[in-house]
Amino acid sequence: RLLYYRIPNILKLLLLVLIAMPFFGYLIYLIEPETFPSLTDGIWWALVTGATVGYGDYVPATLIGRLLAAFLILSGGGLIAFYIASLSTTVIKREKKSQEGKL
Amino acid sequence: RLLYYRIPNILKLLLLVLIAMPFFGYLIYLIEPETFPSLTDGIWWALVTGATVGYGDYVPATLIGRLLAAFLILSGGGLIAFYIASLSTTVIKREKKSQEGKL
Amino acid sequence: RLLYYRIPNILKLLLLVLIAMPFFGYLIYLIEPETFPSLTDGIWWALVTGATVGYGDYVPATLIGRLLAAFLILSGGGLIAFYIASLSTTVIKREKKSQEGKL
Amino acid sequence: RLLYYRIPNILKLLLLVLIAMPFFGYLIYLIEPETFPSLTDGIWWALVTGATVGYGDYVPATLIGRLLAAFLILSGGGLIAFYIASLSTTVIKREKKSQEGKL
Ligand SMILES: [K+]
Ligand SMILES: [K+]
Repeated sequence: RLLYYRIPNILKLLLLVLIAMPFFGYLIYLIEPETFPSLTDGIWWALVTGATVGYGDYVPATLIGRLLAAFLILSGGGLIAFYIASLSTTVIKREKKSQEGKL
Repeated sequence: RLLYYRIPNILKLLLLVLIAMPFFGYLIYLIEPETFPSLTDGIWWALVTGATVGYGDYVPATLIGRLLAAFLILSGGGLIAFYIASLSTTVIKREKKSQEGKL
Repeated sequence: RLLYYRIPNILKLLLLVLIAMPFFGYLIYLIEPETFPSLTDGIWWALVTGATVGYGDYVPATLIGRLLAAFLILSGGGLIAFYIASLSTTVIKREKKSQEGKL
Repeated sequence: RLLYYRIPNILKLLLLVLIAMPFFGYLIYLIEPETFPSLTDGIWWALVTGATVGYGDYVPATLIGRLLAAFLILSGGGLIAFYIASLSTTVIKREKKSQEGKL
């Protein structure tokens, strides 16, 4: 449990992204093989969509593909929000400690 | 009222999204039926726009359609901002509690 | 001064957006009239770009147009960040007050 | 060190962006010269991608280009998150000081 707290939040987030992107990429590759000809294209789409860049070079066209995209977008947004919130807390805590050190 | 506080913020947000996306999707489908041939296309556009992904596969072309998009973008942005702010507060509160527990 | 504090932050932000979007829209319309045939197209582009939706239906192609876009993107991002930060503070303050009321 | 603290965070962020965008822009220009015919196109793509606007006018197509994009997206997102967190802290500190001044 101590080790868990020691792993920085940014690394944990990166690890989650490195697992989630291939996962969503593989699913869309299975669901819409005509739109996503290779697994790499699927993973690329998952990254571009989850980070809300949205180039539009690969876009799901079927209902199931769009539902997966909806889930990815909401997860991605939630993840980014959580990351910002977590980072804010870390910054605030550090500021507090450095302030207490000055007093 | 107690029950209201118990429903996690994430669920409330998801519920709001699940209501707002079909609402905006239906409106754009009524306003620009040539650009959005089906209701599903409208809902898909509302999600992609509200989350600021913006693939560009469906884009309103009329003035009324663009005004609706402006309203959706500003609402979506506000919602995301509110979500991050709310999440930050929750994280900070939990950190505080766990810190107090240690002392 | 008191009146200034009473105007909610969201309204102030909306007012700023309603001034900034036509401003940037007019500038791009002057700089690249071939890409942006009407003032409405310019304002639409400014909203879509400033909110980081980025449909890609209108994209500046000249160096000056891209420099304006860079300025708009950085301003827009800064504005959104400021809005989230401001909202976070408001939420945290309210939580604090309601907590103090309970004690 | 004192001077370092005096430079506002927004300026430091802008400086970082002004260094990072040409850096990523130059790399993609080297990696995919067919997709990015000029250095300016590369820098433009880096800005549009790092800020998650994602017009889709320039999109890397090779695996190495996409890996660079992945790195840029994750860095850009992290930078924006850090900026919001840093700004939140500044706003909260100012609020605290003005509150203490009132008491
Ligand atoms: K986008
Ligand atoms: K986009």
